[in-house]
Amino acid sequence: MKQVNVGLLGLGTVGTGVVRIVEGHREDLQSQTGSPIHISKILVKDRAKTRSISVDSSKLTEDPWEIVRDPAIDVIVEVMGGVGETKQYILEALELGKHVVTANKDLMALHGQELLAKAREKGCDIYYEASVAGGIPIIRTLIEGFSSDRITKIMGIVNGTTNYILTKMSQEGAAYGDVLKEAQALGYAESDPTSDVEGLDAARKMTILSTLGFRANVALDDVDVKGISSVTQEDIQYAKQLGYEVKLLGIAERQDEYISVAVEPTLVKKSHPIASVNGVFNAVYVYGEAVGETMFYGPGAGELPTATSIVADLVAVVKNLKLGVNGKQAVTSYKEKKLKTDEQIASKYFLLLHVEDRAGVLAQIAQVFSDCDVSIESVMQPAPPNKAGAELIIISHNASKAAMSTVLKSFESLSAVREIKSVYRVEG
Amino acid sequence: MKQVNVGLLGLGTVGTGVVRIVEGHREDLQSQTGSPIHISKILVKDRAKTRSISVDSSKLTEDPWEIVRDPAIDVIVEVMGGVGETKQYILEALELGKHVVTANKDLMALHGQELLAKAREKGCDIYYEASVAGGIPIIRTLIEGFSSDRITKIMGIVNGTTNYILTKMSQEGAAYGDVLKEAQALGYAESDPTSDVEGLDAARKMTILSTLGFRANVALDDVDVKGISSVTQEDIQYAKQLGYEVKLLGIAERQDEYISVAVEPTLVKKSHPIASVNGVFNAVYVYGEAVGETMFYGPGAGELPTATSIVADLVAVVKNLKLGVNGKQAVTSYKEKKLKTDEQIASKYFLLLHVEDRAGVLAQIAQVFSDCDVSIESVMQPAPPNKAGAELIIISHNASKAAMSTVLKSFESLSAVREIKSVYRVEG
Repeated sequence: MKQVNVGLLGLGTVGTGVVRIVEGHREDLQSQTGSPIHISKILVKDRAKTRSISVDSSKLTEDPWEIVRDPAIDVIVEVMGGVGETKQYILEALELGKHVVTANKDLMALHGQELLAKAREKGCDIYYEASVAGGIPIIRTLIEGFSSDRITKIMGIVNGTTNYILTKMSQEGAAYGDVLKEAQALGYAESDPTSDVEGLDAARKMTILSTLGFRANVALDDVDVKGISSVTQEDIQYAKQLGYEVKLLGIAERQDEYISVAVEPTLVKKSHPIASVNGVFNAVYVYGEAVGETMFYGPGAGELPTATSIVADLVAVVKNLKLGVNGKQAVTSYKEKKLKTDEQIASKYFLLLHVEDRAGVLAQIAQVFSDCDVSIESVMQPAPPNKAGAELIIISHNASKAAMSTVLKSFESLSAVREIKSVYRVEG
Repeated sequence: MKQVNVGLLGLGTVGTGVVRIVEGHREDLQSQTGSPIHISKILVKDRAKTRSISVDSSKLTEDPWEIVRDPAIDVIVEVMGGVGETKQYILEALELGKHVVTANKDLMALHGQELLAKAREKGCDIYYEASVAGGIPIIRTLIEGFSSDRITKIMGIVNGTTNYILTKMSQEGAAYGDVLKEAQALGYAESDPTSDVEGLDAARKMTILSTLGFRANVALDDVDVKGISSVTQEDIQYAKQLGYEVKLLGIAERQDEYISVAVEPTLVKKSHPIASVNGVFNAVYVYGEAVGETMFYGPGAGELPTATSIVADLVAVVKNLKLGVNGKQAVTSYKEKKLKTDEQIASKYFLLLHVEDRAGVLAQIAQVFSDCDVSIESVMQPAPPNKAGAELIIISHNASKAAMSTVLKSFESLSAVREIKSVYRVEG
């Protein structure tokens, strides 16, 4: 079969990995697809820049349209990032009948439905395995591996930066700010870390995973997001004493037609498989009604892991070309979602309270829980109280988010509670 | 699109699960494939038997050929097991142009190449996701998810029975024989447990995984197999003291064109993700040159988990029918394997020796290691020696299997070594 020509948009870390794999695994790839894969043009910001791989400079261009509109190019691999102009390039490529492989989670979380619809209309493929959890083939798993099941829960550690920070805080007792600085120095965190540490990156990935897992049109705005910047060493140590690790989890749940998606720091029981996912690794835990508990673990980022997923998508496109079935594989009909109300979202909760040191305080607090119909699983006072007051850790039984909000609101008018220091969801 | 008719060979545990999922998820399945899936005939041993699900008795037959030769049946789902007659049914079904979904690891390990070739010749699909690791979609992952990578190592806990036994031995300190009896009472082990405990079941699964992962024609005879029946509580306790868990691992490795596949009890460092896979759960750890470390975890058996994989395969067949691409997806061209020699297979080793209690013993033993060019990582004498002698635990650095065999052979003529109690491979 004839050579497949690829236009590569972007030659940063991941783009470099794509070139390395396509060239380094040339024979393997051809034996699987029957066609040579040829990267014919590459979009770069600066043609003159020195690079870590040798690339024929005649392939490089600074003009994206030269690639998008090149009639000899069959497939566009987009690893440049961004959502504004990048979306225009991809739409135009699809319009011109080119297939698309992208690693762009922002684009897919924000405009995935529109791009998939355009691809289908034009008989083109759009694959995006690398957009979530780097080297873990979780998108294929959700679409194909669990096509027969009803997934009711997806919990993901889908942001390596925050998992690195929380792991270091847990293992070394370091403060959030110090670990963040170290992560920045090591290149694990950006100089502006907001998107990672405030959970926005994870929210985009959870939008994609819950759309696929629940076959429902989840939007980024549906995700309730809280980051890790307020997680303290005190929280982590108390959690550990009680047998939990603090993890930034994306949690998507479904019951019947109602779904909820959140990203938030969560206490995870140490015996749960996701609790021992450390450092920059990612993992996605999937619960299906029939299959039960499963988990998929691997590198969430990096040049070659991410490029592995991109080139696997490229192989899929080339196989489809050979069979003449491009644009017919992707699921594009999603159910209308109904979001769970706060009355329908339930979990255990961990509360760290600063309270007055006097008789009857615990009784008053217990009364508030009881009035709100929230049952207490355990109460711990980690140190003897002193003049400054006492610390109280309460873990609830399963309670609705609404009921827990009422508990917290009631504490505001309860003089015995000086401060609600932390509130976390508890899993496992 | 027209209804797809399925003939189900077998209505035991897994067959019942298939009926439950196909009927319980009817709408979901149809919305994905565009076709109603209808189980039209079911092979049973005894039509009169009472069952846990209600099935229209007119669908039941005791004659496999009535299903295999029924021109109205499009797909055969084989969950009856066996390799002799079952192979004939599947070959005949393929000959007649029917697609096949099977959960039969024995059949695929022994005759996979022949069946895949026949399927390709006839333009038929044959899918077998459920044959390895029940509900974990590991076959799809190896074929599609990592199509772009070069996998160099696959380590699997692919037998739930032995993992249950080893977990119980480790967590509760019980003896092998007692835990086996308990597992039999709970239905986790067969009355004749040989195939599980001697590693044969795991070997069949590793044959399938290494064939796919390495794209080489690995045969069951290529697998070096050792079971868990000689693992003692002493081994497990010493391993734990040193920071390891004992697991029955399938280990497949590749270097250039040379491969090795073994199933054996192995010491796994507790920090390795596969060390914390407990009970009847399965996990497959995959190392790819580009992607690095990944792991896939889930239920290895059971009615609904296994049926999840089978029905996901059925969905794939029906999608292929719709696109007219059956028989064109499976990889059937494998490289000729070259097996690694014992000189090429390398790992760390754990040795538990019973030795004489006299001066100079350790020096003599160290000399043997040195003569064989095997370097020692650590030596531990867990208890003070007494008249009965001493126990010595040695962990080596990476050594070839051949060199370690020479070490062990040399011990035979060394009077200081009374008994080689245990030898295990060490990973992680």
